[in-house]
Amino acid sequence: MRYGFLGPETTFTHQALLQALAETPEEFASAEPQLVPFASVATATTDLIAGDIDALMAPIENSVEGGVSGTLDVLAATDSITIVAEQTVQITFVLAARAATPLDQLGTITSHPHAQAQVQEWLRTQVPAADVAAASSTAAAARDLAALDAEAARGRAAVCSPLAAQHYGLEILAEGIEDHAGAITRFVLVTREGRIPARTGADKTTLAIQLPHNRAGALLEALEILSSNGVNMSRIESRPVGDFLGRYSFSIDVEGHIEDRRVAAALRSLHRLCPVVHYLGSYPRVDGGRPDIREDYADEAYDAARVWVERLSGMITPS
Amino acid sequence: MRYGFLGPETTFTHQALLQALAETPEEFASAEPQLVPFASVATATTDLIAGDIDALMAPIENSVEGGVSGTLDVLAATDSITIVAEQTVQITFVLAARAATPLDQLGTITSHPHAQAQVQEWLRTQVPAADVAAASSTAAAARDLAALDAEAARGRAAVCSPLAAQHYGLEILAEGIEDHAGAITRFVLVTREGRIPARTGADKTTLAIQLPHNRAGALLEALEILSSNGVNMSRIESRPVGDFLGRYSFSIDVEGHIEDRRVAAALRSLHRLCPVVHYLGSYPRVDGGRPDIREDYADEAYDAARVWVERLSGMITPS
Amino acid sequence: MRYGFLGPETTFTHQALLQALAETPEEFASAEPQLVPFASVATATTDLIAGDIDALMAPIENSVEGGVSGTLDVLAATDSITIVAEQTVQITFVLAARAATPLDQLGTITSHPHAQAQVQEWLRTQVPAADVAAASSTAAAARDLAALDAEAARGRAAVCSPLAAQHYGLEILAEGIEDHAGAITRFVLVTREGRIPARTGADKTTLAIQLPHNRAGALLEALEILSSNGVNMSRIESRPVGDFLGRYSFSIDVEGHIEDRRVAAALRSLHRLCPVVHYLGSYPRVDGGRPDIREDYADEAYDAARVWVERLSGMITPS
Amino acid sequence: MRYGFLGPETTFTHQALLQALAETPEEFASAEPQLVPFASVATATTDLIAGDIDALMAPIENSVEGGVSGTLDVLAATDSITIVAEQTVQITFVLAARAATPLDQLGTITSHPHAQAQVQEWLRTQVPAADVAAASSTAAAARDLAALDAEAARGRAAVCSPLAAQHYGLEILAEGIEDHAGAITRFVLVTREGRIPARTGADKTTLAIQLPHNRAGALLEALEILSSNGVNMSRIESRPVGDFLGRYSFSIDVEGHIEDRRVAAALRSLHRLCPVVHYLGSYPRVDGGRPDIREDYADEAYDAARVWVERLSGMITPS
Repeated sequence: MRYGFLGPETTFTHQALLQALAETPEEFASAEPQLVPFASVATATTDLIAGDIDALMAPIENSVEGGVSGTLDVLAATDSITIVAEQTVQITFVLAARAATPLDQLGTITSHPHAQAQVQEWLRTQVPAADVAAASSTAAAARDLAALDAEAARGRAAVCSPLAAQHYGLEILAEGIEDHAGAITRFVLVTREGRIPARTGADKTTLAIQLPHNRAGALLEALEILSSNGVNMSRIESRPVGDFLGRYSFSIDVEGHIEDRRVAAALRSLHRLCPVVHYLGSYPRVDGGRPDIREDYADEAYDAARVWVERLSGMITPS
Repeated sequence: MRYGFLGPETTFTHQALLQALAETPEEFASAEPQLVPFASVATATTDLIAGDIDALMAPIENSVEGGVSGTLDVLAATDSITIVAEQTVQITFVLAARAATPLDQLGTITSHPHAQAQVQEWLRTQVPAADVAAASSTAAAARDLAALDAEAARGRAAVCSPLAAQHYGLEILAEGIEDHAGAITRFVLVTREGRIPARTGADKTTLAIQLPHNRAGALLEALEILSSNGVNMSRIESRPVGDFLGRYSFSIDVEGHIEDRRVAAALRSLHRLCPVVHYLGSYPRVDGGRPDIREDYADEAYDAARVWVERLSGMITPS
Repeated sequence: MRYGFLGPETTFTHQALLQALAETPEEFASAEPQLVPFASVATATTDLIAGDIDALMAPIENSVEGGVSGTLDVLAATDSITIVAEQTVQITFVLAARAATPLDQLGTITSHPHAQAQVQEWLRTQVPAADVAAASSTAAAARDLAALDAEAARGRAAVCSPLAAQHYGLEILAEGIEDHAGAITRFVLVTREGRIPARTGADKTTLAIQLPHNRAGALLEALEILSSNGVNMSRIESRPVGDFLGRYSFSIDVEGHIEDRRVAAALRSLHRLCPVVHYLGSYPRVDGGRPDIREDYADEAYDAARVWVERLSGMITPS
Repeated sequence: MRYGFLGPETTFTHQALLQALAETPEEFASAEPQLVPFASVATATTDLIAGDIDALMAPIENSVEGGVSGTLDVLAATDSITIVAEQTVQITFVLAARAATPLDQLGTITSHPHAQAQVQEWLRTQVPAADVAAASSTAAAARDLAALDAEAARGRAAVCSPLAAQHYGLEILAEGIEDHAGAITRFVLVTREGRIPARTGADKTTLAIQLPHNRAGALLEALEILSSNGVNMSRIESRPVGDFLGRYSFSIDVEGHIEDRRVAAALRSLHRLCPVVHYLGSYPRVDGGRPDIREDYADEAYDAARVWVERLSGMITPS
């Protein structure tokens, strides 16, 4: 089994993939997983569909290292892939160097601009004299620092993930240096379309929809479809479609599994409303949260209603 | 075949039943219809359910002779009866006497109070000197006048339906005497539960629902169910349920037939929401009006959506 | 001060009026209230508007003695009257006679048909042999029994209110004879338009609206107006308008006072939507219940929003 | 007057600014406009708020040269700026070189990756043998080509805007080379908060809102607020807020001007619902389109409703 991830090695996406492998080792035991970094979600997806890799970990929400737009656009454009799992990673940064160095002796600090934005207050107060230089990723900042000879590395440090520091054998000068603790990025594990994981009762379903652009209020109608089936939406993001003004695709996560009658009913109604609905998978929620289902949204209520109408329909005089 | 109607003979309900028999004579040809007047919709319904009569004509909207509340309460209380047809009758009144009489020689005019209310302006201006006396129905006013001997009938007239005047051999002194022309009463033909007439494309469906009384906004939810399935409501009336404040049953007509997917879908959702849903029949609209159906509410859209979700559901890993 | 009520004396409406006078004696102290029975709500309202009486108590919900339709129709037809208070009366019946009589010696029992319907099970099991005769009201049944000479009254009893039995000096043979305990009727005290009682925080507002009949979904829109302002509806009843099919007036009670910003905002929106909106008063709830108001429906939220938009509007370039 | 734009010179944003100056020359006549390119919308906005420039043109929808996310994030983060105008630019590309060159003699073609994506089909079929190289913008591709000496420029071409080719004196080898004609980018002209342009009747209003994150269905409520005031939404885009999952800001355009009562009413309701509402301006629509306003959404309907409730409120007894 070959698993792609948005690279290079030691990105938070890499970490998310390692977490997934560690949490359910039985699923991967015989598979001898190979991990393959990719430069973009789009290229990884092409390889996935072509069969060159078997699964792909990609950021879908709030990544500090980019990639989210790419993931959303890929998910909006195809329905021949399926999300089978999600992972979240606590985003935290370390300041790492080749050797233990007092902070006031640091001259240059490298990192990815998104990461720098999240530690800028810390850098301003703790290493006010150091220059800040850009790298193409936090992982690259660490890797490049590790590749320098000892002399060239003197006075230099990288802002990177703990995994990157460890992987490249760097010394951690300070940890938890992000200005606002608690940031989390969410990742999804994507496979070729085929099997949907069984319902666990604590599930999430991901969709990409396009709305009829000639009808005012179509987004309102789509949200009412969810609401009137007791389906909570936990995420909605818009992405422009093509080059035409006012055309959007919406990437949506809802609570529940396609096996839940209420989710299936909402999907049917969305299918009627929307010119495009991509079903992108139902999978276990990483937080294990189970929605509170009102009685009239329970499977039993949908089943009883179906049976009732079928019985009545049996009384129709053949025309 | 025995047909009950809200009597006595020559009521507008009687007229509605005669209209129904005349319009579709082939349905009744071999049936040799017998027409049976009833004092109330409730007693007629008891006889209908017991099998003593085969069908029942009853007013459901805006009757000038009462009976509507009775019909609504009967329809709310049972689902072992089915509406199979509707009729409308143009409500118009005549002033009738035993013999031609100048208006200024009339001393007493009898009628049902509801009918009097509808001709009071005419009476005030045309026969200002006459006394007005109450009868238990317009039909009874005509019948009682016809039963008097010629002498006693002198100077008396009745406000009644044209049918009543004709039936009891009365002379029509003035016709179309209602203050506001154009009033219409609507009637339904009810049978024991059994067969639903085939879909014609111009159909109506009647329901009686009770809402969950512990949830604010339940009526709003019920109306959204109709709206989100493209189902127009052509009538809604509330009737109190039992003796508890704030508990209502709603009698509802919608455009469409239970065989329409959009109507069936709305019925299923109402069944989940409402503690009580009585389906009371789908039947041809007397006005032949066909609703304009938006593309996403067409049968094809519902069918395609169902097929799509079923295909996806086939991909779920057995748990 | 002259107070009308739906009579005759000792009806439950009479009792509701006595309750109101007893509960707030200070309001009526100097007024030396005179109580005037009326045969119908319509005639009492005519007298009220003409100034012959100063206030009127009328049943509005679930009266066992009729009158509710009459009240609703009067309230729908005018906005020159204002509801200033409500009362509820626990509906309970007694069996009363001129003198103590064993139940098995009763030959005839009189009452109003609505009342009989509510005690029929008790009568069937406790006085199976007695005849049941109709009176024009429970009060009339008691009054007429009291008017008989002792001999004629032997073997006769009336089903009536405790107040009627007491008023006419009858002996109570059995009390609480209603088949289902707990029935309540609600009454409103109506004055000529003029003053709206001050907000108490536990208030109710009554409206009568007509919907635009050329727009599908207008009732849904009306209910959304209430819902989107956090206004709960505690009662809705339809009444036909005129003689045209499909035209209804809706009588509505909502929780709150017109001084509540959320209620005022809802009224404004209803005024735009509806061709007819009659505001019929805001008055203290008899149960003292205070609604739970979400923060964004509080007065402060409406006031802050108004101030914000006004500030922005001040920046518009004069055109 | 100093006008910033997302540079470098000859970007489509530059072109949008030139269009604006040309269309309403009287507004700019005395102002002697100076045009200042900026590297990012964020830095330009900082300068705008600081007073270093007076206005700023920025892409807001579907730019081929990026910048949209930056604009949306800036608009979401502040309400001390105001949009006063919009512009649209038809996106079209030319292939330009230093001198007329047969296509089959081109060896290298440079452009911005977004632009390349839009002409890739044309390049693949028309200049299949050429290498494609990235520049930091289409403008930079043209500028750099112009800066080369004639020899070095031989066999090289740039994909750029017609404006860029003209500005840098390049020879146009082919025009309209985009694979899908008709792409449009939309730009807004932003000033410091201060004056809102007068209502024209064909206006647009831009908002940035954050929803209460603890309430399911808040987006649905926000859209219902617009819908129930007859306010059409012409654009909605989500942008993540901070680093927390599931928190979004929505950038919204609606049809109408804050001086329209229906827009003001919707703004008030959004202010109650949303913890953050940034009003970013009302300005003339570049397409001149006037919305069809239903009668109950007209200014007159709002004004009449306000007057009615105020009159009623005047009747409240002082508490």
